[in-house]
Parts: sequence; structure tokens; C-alpha cells
Amino acid sequence: MNWSDTITSPTLILDKDRCLDNIRRMVDRAKASGVHFRPHFKTHQSARIADWFSPFGVDAITVSSVAMAKYFADHGWNNITIAFPVNLREIQGINDLAKKIHLELLVESLESIRFLVENLKAPVGLWLKADVGAHRTGVPVEEHDTFLALAKEASHSQRLSLKGVLTHAGQTYHAGSAEEVKQIYSDATSKLNLLKESLRKTGSTDIQISWGDTPSCSLVDDLSNVNEIRPGNFVLFDFTQFQIGSCREEDIAAAVACPVVALHPERNEVIIHGGAVHLSKERLEHEGVCSFGAVALPTATGWSKYIPNANVTSLSQEHGILSIPKEYLSSIQVGDLLVILPIHSCLAVDLFKQYHSLDGEIIPTMRMKTI
Amino acid sequence: MNWSDTITSPTLILDKDRCLDNIRRMVDRAKASGVHFRPHFKTHQSARIADWFSPFGVDAITVSSVAMAKYFADHGWNNITIAFPVNLREIQGINDLAKKIHLELLVESLESIRFLVENLKAPVGLWLKADVGAHRTGVPVEEHDTFLALAKEASHSQRLSLKGVLTHAGQTYHAGSAEEVKQIYSDATSKLNLLKESLRKTGSTDIQISWGDTPSCSLVDDLSNVNEIRPGNFVLFDFTQFQIGSCREEDIAAAVACPVVALHPERNEVIIHGGAVHLSKERLEHEGVCSFGAVALPTATGWSKYIPNANVTSLSQEHGILSIPKEYLSSIQVGDLLVILPIHSCLAVDLFKQYHSLDGEIIPTMRMKTI
Repeated sequence: MNWSDTITSPTLILDKDRCLDNIRRMVDRAKASGVHFRPHFKTHQSARIADWFSPFGVDAITVSSVAMAKYFADHGWNNITIAFPVNLREIQGINDLAKKIHLELLVESLESIRFLVENLKAPVGLWLKADVGAHRTGVPVEEHDTFLALAKEASHSQRLSLKGVLTHAGQTYHAGSAEEVKQIYSDATSKLNLLKESLRKTGSTDIQISWGDTPSCSLVDDLSNVNEIRPGNFVLFDFTQFQIGSCREEDIAAAVACPVVALHPERNEVIIHGGAVHLSKERLEHEGVCSFGAVALPTATGWSKYIPNANVTSLSQEHGILSIPKEYLSSIQVGDLLVILPIHSCLAVDLFKQYHSLDGEIIPTMRMKTI
Repeated sequence: MNWSDTITSPTLILDKDRCLDNIRRMVDRAKASGVHFRPHFKTHQSARIADWFSPFGVDAITVSSVAMAKYFADHGWNNITIAFPVNLREIQGINDLAKKIHLELLVESLESIRFLVENLKAPVGLWLKADVGAHRTGVPVEEHDTFLALAKEASHSQRLSLKGVLTHAGQTYHAGSAEEVKQIYSDATSKLNLLKESLRKTGSTDIQISWGDTPSCSLVDDLSNVNEIRPGNFVLFDFTQFQIGSCREEDIAAAVACPVVALHPERNEVIIHGGAVHLSKERLEHEGVCSFGAVALPTATGWSKYIPNANVTSLSQEHGILSIPKEYLSSIQVGDLLVILPIHSCLAVDLFKQYHSLDGEIIPTMRMKTI
């Protein structure tokens, strides 16, 4: 029996072998560059998948919320960075965690540091957020004086131990080529190292640089300009990463199996059960259309390569409309299963709350807690 | 103490009074037109909110999946239409439901009807899906011969009882004015009544027309061209419906409270904890920008009117970037709460899995089952 025979409704499929290969490859990249590997677990959100990192010696992780930190701490992880500007309203949850595990927080303002100085009940590591061009959060990397002021403010509390400077070069997601990604890494890390020198001059000898984003961690061979990498998406990859060039198509480890519910050959369309509540409304320009997913066929061992010029072109809550080239249409029937390669696997995982592995295992995420 | 004092992380807030008013108003509209009211429960997805319909005599509902039908059946609803092209792979779940409750299904192809004729184990009502211009699913309303062939095929099974023609005029969501919405209703229902006549001529005397979509059900005063209405979003409304004109701003009954985690006055931006996993990536053109949500301030009894020219302009997994007019920026601090009016409330509800009512009640949805 094939894995697909038992699928009745939209299902997130995990190719465990690909996932393990992705983990192994990123572990090797970190090792080759001599950098600390602190993978971001916001993509897979699963204690079971987290366990797959342990045999590689991974014992420190990154998360994006206090709730996610609590989930992984409850599953035995005791060295966690919350790589999100500290949410002052969650100080109680932060203190509860800081008493139990080695916790690291991220700040970018004097106000937040002052709040922590006054309200922290246990020691934490502190990262200063640098903006190296993504312009989402952080202090511009060139503003050394601001960083020095933040570091000085943090020195007022013995509970705050300055770790260094953390950044997420999110602009790599908009890079046009691997070369451009490498250039972003090179430029940004030069600036980060100048900042590191400025901070060291004040007496903080052990200033680290922590670097995120899957495209650069996948494409830059020598990552030794930084001390730590925090990629997350690499564990599954997705169609966006494939388009950027961060992975090969055969590295994409998660996809969404969807039943065909209607055919409209008169407009080259197939309707699936699989909508915004399954795939999210993340979109990508692909093959000249706005695509909510690429389309593949189920195989005995997983799924095929994506069908050229087949795309999810529209999503409502539960419906997906697929544009399918004429030559493929005649072989698709109502009741068949199609496999959608998601544009953004993190969001699909968040929506599904669990994976079905190709060998039949149900793997829950934190959204479907088992403890 | 205000409702907002206890909020620490992104939270879906429900204004129960507005929600009850929305229900009452739609009940009254259906009554005034003499049409059957079969509200779509895919928006609120909650057995608790479903209970609020019962005092108005509502005993028949619409859902968008077999899983949703099962959830509401488990909570005592025994007259349910699954207004989604029947998913053949879920025949076992369909049969289980059909044995317990009065179930109505939706089809648009001979293949699906033949499958039901062969595989149904209990009686169901059958709706034929008509496309009146949304071009998502359905047989074009003008193609009477196709409908006649579908009706004939259905007559081969005593378990299939033809209810009539069902449509969702989704194009009302792209209408530029209330007048245009009314014109869509008028044109489409004329065509549906011609189709109804054709179907009646074959001997099916009790052919019904079932009509969906919140914009037309909110804006058309005389809905008596159809027999049944199935609006869903009206129970909460959202910023999209407000922009269409389906509701007043003060009818929007659900919003997302989000903590401020960073300020970037140099680019008129505020960063909130509140991202794609909270608001979804549904977007709308608003005030010349691509908006993922309008921005309001919390008040003692709910939230303010939206701030003109303040919008959620970018979302990552957990971050929201808000563009805020300069004059409001100075009054916003890290640690404050802002209230986002979602672009699409159905998707925000699906992501949050529960509501916090303004008076402190936690209301779960089917995504956070309590039985």
C-alpha cells in the first residue's frame, strides 16, 4: 500500500529521510566553519523533530516566542534563545523559564533593558539586535554609540550577561542570485565585526556575533565571520528556498497532499480541498503568475518533481484553485490526490499542527501538544 | 481592571454584544425576506457561538468540511449542509454523518454523483453547484442541460434527494459599491430562477435556490428571489467587509490585541508581536498601501475606531510591522497593546483557535476541541 492510499483530507506529509539529510548537511556546514549551531525551531515546532538534532550534538536552540520556549523547555531543551524583541508583557513567563533553563533574550532599546534590569528574577544572556539591512527590527549596525549605550545599560544588572550582537539578514530572501546572498553576508559581517571591536573596547571581551537566515547559511561556504548561526527553515525547506537557490528541489522535505474535488478543463483548472487554512496565503512570483504553491504528483515513495507551469493560483478558506497545463489535465480525476509544495513551510506547519511521515508516523507540533 | 490589562501575547478579542447584534440583524433580514436562514459556521468555528443562534430558531447550518460537520454534529446540530464539492475520499466520514443527522451535500459533476450513487449508505440531500460568475467551482448557471443531466443521474439513487441549486457569488467581494453588489444579486438570481424552472419541468417540483456570501446578504434588502441564504462572515465581519460596505466599522466583532515590542520612529514604524501565524497573510489595498490589518487602540470597553493611515504593512511568522502616522507615534510605548482589525476574520479565528471575550470568557473553536 502506498502512503497516499489512506489520505482522505489535506495532510502535511514529511519525508523524514530528506529532513534528516537537511539537518546533517547544516550540522556539517557549521562544523566546517567552526561556528556554534543554534538551529531555529520555529519552522518545525515539534519536540519529535527536535530529538533528531540531538545525536549531532545540538544542545542549544532558537525559538520565536515565550510559548515556544516553554514548549521546548518542557521537552528537555535547557539552552534557548528567544530571538524576538523581548515582550515586556510576558515577564512572568520569562522569569519562570529563566529560573529553570539557560535563557537568552533579545533587545534593541534602552526601555526594554531598563525593564529587564528592574523585573528579572534570574540570570539571562542578552543579545543586542542589529539591523544589517532587513529593516524589520534592530539598531542599524553602523550606530556603534547606540550599541555602547545599550551595553552600558545592561551592565547595571548582574542578571544580564551580555552575549553579543544578533542579526537576521532577512533581505537574503529577496536576493536575485546566490552571489547576491554571499555579498549580503560578506558586507553585513564586515560591519558586525567592526561593531564587535567597538564593544570589546569597552571591556566586554567575549562579544559574539549570532547570524540567522537559511539562504545565507545554505549558500555561504565559509561562515567563520560569525560565531553562531541560527537557520530554521533548512530543516524542511520550501518552494521559496528552492527559488532562491538555498536548496535543490529534492531537499524539500514537507508537502501538502490534497484531494481533487472538481475539474474545470474549460479554464485549465483543478479544484482541490486545500485552502488558506492549510497552505497559508503566502505567495511567490513564479512562472509569471502569483503562486500559492507548486504542484506535484504523489509517487510510491513520496512525490514527483513539480509540474512546470502548474500552480496554485487562488486560495479561499478551504478551496485551492490550480492552473494545470492542458497535457496533464486529462490524467487527473476527481478523487485523486495532488501534492502541493508550499511557498512557506513554516506557515503550513503552523496551520497543520502535525505531520504524517511517509512511513506512517504522526508527528505532532507544539500546536497539538502531547504533554 | 480593563480587559486589556491581562493580555500578554497576541489574543483574539471578541465583542460578544456586537456578535449578538450581527446575528440578530441577519436573522431579521432573512425573516423580512421570508427566506430560510442556514448560516455558515466556517467563520466562527465554535460550538459556543453556535449556541447563540438557537434562541433565534436557527436549527440548520452550513459548514465547509466533513471535519467541521462532525464537530457541530457532535455538539447537537442535526441539519447540516457541507457547502463544498464532495470529497470522495471522505466517503466513510460522510456515511457516518448521514446515518446520524440530516446531511446535505454539494456536487457539480456526473462522476461525483455516480460515486455517491454507488457508495452512500444513508439518505442525504443533494445540491447542484451553480457558478454565477465567481468562477471558483460549479456549472455555469446558463448550462441548463448539464444541470438536467446531473439531476437525472441523481435520480438513480433513492438515497439522493435533490434539494436544488446552490451558489456562492464570491465576485461580490470585488464589487466597487453596494449598487454593484445588488446588481450581481439581481442578475444572478434571475438566471438561477430560469434554471429552477428548467429543473421543475422535469418533475422535480420542490427545487430550491440556496444563496451564499455576506456582502449580498447584508446589502440586498429583498432576498426573496432565493429560498435560502448561507452567509457566514457576518457573525464577526472584518475590515474587508467594512471596505465593501457590508457592515459599519462598529459591527466588527473580533480583533487581535498585540503587544508592542519595538519602535522605529525614524521610519514611522511600530513592531508588534503579531505575525502571519496570528493574522494570516490575507491582504487588502487600503489607503494606497497593501494592508494586512487596520490599527486601533484598546479602550476600557473594547477598541477605538481605526487610526487613519495606520496599517500593518508587513508580516513575518511572529512579527508585524505597522506604519503609524507621526502624530500617533509619540504616544505609543514598548509594552503597550495595539488592536488590529483583521482583513479576514475567518482566517484569524482559524489561527487563534479560541476567543477571549471582553468580559473574560475563553471561547474555544473546533481547532481546540473541548469534547
